[in-house]
Amino acid sequence: MRAYNFNAGPAAIPLPVLERAQKELVNFQNTGMSVMELSHRSKDYEEVHNRANTLLRELLGIPDTYEVLFLQGGASLQFSMIPMNFLQENKTAHFIMSGSWSEKALKEAKVFGETRILASSKEDKYAHIPGDYSLEELEDGAYLHITSNNTIYGTQWNEYPTSPIPLIADMSSDILCKEIDVEKFSLIYAGAQKNLGPSGVTVVIVKKDFLETARSNVPTILKYSTHAESNSLYNTPPTFAIYMLSLVLEWVKEQGGVKNIQKINEEKAGYIYSAIDESEGFYKAHATEDSRSLMNITFTLPNEELTKKFLQEAKDRQFIGLAGHRSVGGCRASTYNAVPKEACAALAKFMTEFKNQNQ
Amino acid sequence: MRAYNFNAGPAAIPLPVLERAQKELVNFQNTGMSVMELSHRSKDYEEVHNRANTLLRELLGIPDTYEVLFLQGGASLQFSMIPMNFLQENKTAHFIMSGSWSEKALKEAKVFGETRILASSKEDKYAHIPGDYSLEELEDGAYLHITSNNTIYGTQWNEYPTSPIPLIADMSSDILCKEIDVEKFSLIYAGAQKNLGPSGVTVVIVKKDFLETARSNVPTILKYSTHAESNSLYNTPPTFAIYMLSLVLEWVKEQGGVKNIQKINEEKAGYIYSAIDESEGFYKAHATEDSRSLMNITFTLPNEELTKKFLQEAKDRQFIGLAGHRSVGGCRASTYNAVPKEACAALAKFMTEFKNQNQ
Repeated sequence: MRAYNFNAGPAAIPLPVLERAQKELVNFQNTGMSVMELSHRSKDYEEVHNRANTLLRELLGIPDTYEVLFLQGGASLQFSMIPMNFLQENKTAHFIMSGSWSEKALKEAKVFGETRILASSKEDKYAHIPGDYSLEELEDGAYLHITSNNTIYGTQWNEYPTSPIPLIADMSSDILCKEIDVEKFSLIYAGAQKNLGPSGVTVVIVKKDFLETARSNVPTILKYSTHAESNSLYNTPPTFAIYMLSLVLEWVKEQGGVKNIQKINEEKAGYIYSAIDESEGFYKAHATEDSRSLMNITFTLPNEELTKKFLQEAKDRQFIGLAGHRSVGGCRASTYNAVPKEACAALAKFMTEFKNQNQ
Repeated sequence: MRAYNFNAGPAAIPLPVLERAQKELVNFQNTGMSVMELSHRSKDYEEVHNRANTLLRELLGIPDTYEVLFLQGGASLQFSMIPMNFLQENKTAHFIMSGSWSEKALKEAKVFGETRILASSKEDKYAHIPGDYSLEELEDGAYLHITSNNTIYGTQWNEYPTSPIPLIADMSSDILCKEIDVEKFSLIYAGAQKNLGPSGVTVVIVKKDFLETARSNVPTILKYSTHAESNSLYNTPPTFAIYMLSLVLEWVKEQGGVKNIQKINEEKAGYIYSAIDESEGFYKAHATEDSRSLMNITFTLPNEELTKKFLQEAKDRQFIGLAGHRSVGGCRASTYNAVPKEACAALAKFMTEFKNQNQ
């Protein structure tokens, strides 16, 4: 039986994708080899690689004025690569702080230059996406950095700022969950292990003219231009992870694309938020209503004892990954694209039953 | 039918490993999830992670005074991380140059500080491992860097220098191919995609007291200590690649460990070198006899036309990956651990037949 996988990442992967990968694992398209055994310079692999690129462009509506790169190191390496490449001396990197990942991004930018917090919801335990800031203060900044979705706190941006300076977003935990206007951004990055596939590959979408402003005194492998100039084949890419990415993207397309995925995600999150809202205060959402995430639903129970009992009973019913992040406690259901509607409906049903029995 | 896979990397993976990965791809050990869908903080994944670490320690005889790390970014990122962490101001990094990968390592070290070439076989088209150097010249150097095996030129170190300063080796293309004395080294690194598994994970073996000498003003993710302190779980590791690594290591153990693998490798390479040596000059090995690699066998044919014909006929017989690297031409057979004896014997037989028909 498939588990109800609500892991925060690495997370659920669509079952048909896993089944296809399984089927062709030993013999990829009659090559007599696994896709892992193909040379990254071979025609067979190149097709996989380019298909992932093309599909992502198609699904997100990425214009030709942007590069799509497949890198390694996760969002954590991006936290350093971004300032290394784009935080010019005598300029400032601005941050809107919406959680722990914003904090990590800020911390690493400080290693390379001047930073400034434009807005933060830290005092509110990051329960909302900050809205109280003036974009006019940004003049002459290097870039403005945001975290589009906050896995730990369960908040998500609804509308992105129209920034007068390059806007950079960490979209690791909500890329492809809903339609976005890529042209608002100069750079988008996302570790794959939530909505795109297995861990081990990081997608970067970067505007070509922004790329041209990058610093030059950067180690070769840490320059975005190195990877842009070589179609992400400067060194050996994580070929299997990119293959899995290509299969996940095909699956998204088969689901009717991002527009339809968004509708399904709204329905899925709706089940669980309804169970919270209709619980007469038994479950409390951490996020304020206008900042609720479609991808990570965070909530608490009346006390520690009930939380433990809830997590234990959930586990017995094959619900996986519902404990909140160790830094905040409580509960969290991550409802990424690959989590089926049935899993969310089953969780909502269980939540209501548990409330009725323990209220 | 399985191809005869002589790819230089990504390369062959043992068939039993692929078959096991295939079997449990959708449902890993009755978790109801793929290993790719497990949280990297879960007990199930942690066992995989720690098993890879323990097996590598056992197979290579790595003492407790060393850390074993699983990183991302390939050897190419190590080219930068090493000087970033270990090339102290007012010290010099020394290099013994044995091919293109040594050159890349040197180039990136230059970004961070002083470098010096202790010896080089470039004038000999890197046909041998340099032996004409004095280790006494190294006094007060930061470290000495070598490339243990040269994929492009087909050469390999036989005996490692006993260096008075920390010895660092890029063993990407020959780790686990033969027994080594880890204690000669302060740091060993290897991209997995030749002898260890799929691309996307890099193994680093680093002496703890060397680690303590590292510079502190390094971005968090690029510090070795970050990964050492968190058992390579500081950020999300490439979990599936590490899982594959663990299976490959189990397979090496089942083959009787590195000692036995070495014997098999000598036999395998022996078939092909014999076909060269007994061809009365039809095939010419690029490497000098004392520097011949067990892992990459490079050779040329009398002319360009015959080379093309050879590669075409080889391809028709399902021999994959025999073209030499684009920078040097000719032919190359990569006979990594996972390439079966039968494939090497079949190639040797074909080489002799081709010679007889085209001499």
